[in-house]
Amino acid sequence: MKFCSACGAGVALRIPDGDALPRFVCEACGTIHYQNPKMVVGALAVWEDRILLCRRAIEPRHGLWTLPAGFMENDETTGQAAIRETMEEACARIELTELYTLVNVPHISQVHMLYRARLLDVDFAPGPESLEVALMREDEIPWDEIAFRSIALTLRHFFADRREGHFRFRVADLPPPPAA
Amino acid sequence: MKFCSACGAGVALRIPDGDALPRFVCEACGTIHYQNPKMVVGALAVWEDRILLCRRAIEPRHGLWTLPAGFMENDETTGQAAIRETMEEACARIELTELYTLVNVPHISQVHMLYRARLLDVDFAPGPESLEVALMREDEIPWDEIAFRSIALTLRHFFADRREGHFRFRVADLPPPPAA
Repeated sequence: MKFCSACGAGVALRIPDGDALPRFVCEACGTIHYQNPKMVVGALAVWEDRILLCRRAIEPRHGLWTLPAGFMENDETTGQAAIRETMEEACARIELTELYTLVNVPHISQVHMLYRARLLDVDFAPGPESLEVALMREDEIPWDEIAFRSIALTLRHFFADRREGHFRFRVADLPPPPAA
Repeated sequence: MKFCSACGAGVALRIPDGDALPRFVCEACGTIHYQNPKMVVGALAVWEDRILLCRRAIEPRHGLWTLPAGFMENDETTGQAAIRETMEEACARIELTELYTLVNVPHISQVHMLYRARLLDVDFAPGPESLEVALMREDEIPWDEIAFRSIALTLRHFFADRREGHFRFRVADLPPPPAA
């Protein structure tokens, strides 16, 4: 951020009076431009014993597999975001079961939330951000080709909880990834 | 938003290619300025049979009571945000028990999250954003003077769950408030 989005003047990074953290502050009109974490919301949708996965057609992680998920928009709920993203990425209709995982990813200022859901029919297809959409059994999951750690964590908890016959809401914090 | 924060040129509100929603797009450098919901995170901290509440010294809802909570910052987790906000607003040290409520407030593009927590000592005091901080029993809660509906909902669930001897994670969606 270099310019004030309200008046177009230059901004400076400084700690405003009464605040504890540096913010982008407009030198001309005084507007303080706060920056906050973003939510990424999606769904683990089940059809019989299979899970709906998408292969990514976009960066980051082009070509890798994920659960349908994306940035939550203004004016919607987390549940609406999960349903919308599943429609956009997999052209699939779902009914939400419950919020299942909340994963903090502080080094990129994101919070990921995945719902358990029921796939309502098998008329799915890749949306513009997916190369391929597939229903996979546990032994078909390409564990070495999962795009994001929050998604792998959600899938692992799901299969473990399904074996135990009891699903429970999970909160997890991811550390920065090891250097390449 | 009137100006591009990257280059200072004017922005226009239009639907970018391949997108579904109008965004602020820079006419000069092409930057798309996405706007996303914000998270407000806090704690319901317990000392014996009492709850830690703060009376607000700032707008909105100056003078009304709330649980310590505030906007989540970049680079932190939801748990760190709950602990930090409780320290800032009530100068109180807590240990988190678990995430307890997640409340969608889509008409203001916010998601509120409240943790259950244990107050570690009674050396609390009002921070700069609080007029007063108090420990209250259920029959002392000023129900007509609670600042936010997500906080009243969290308190009501807490006392009901405590009576039943079983706390469970809750997700709720708030409709817009009735017109005044």
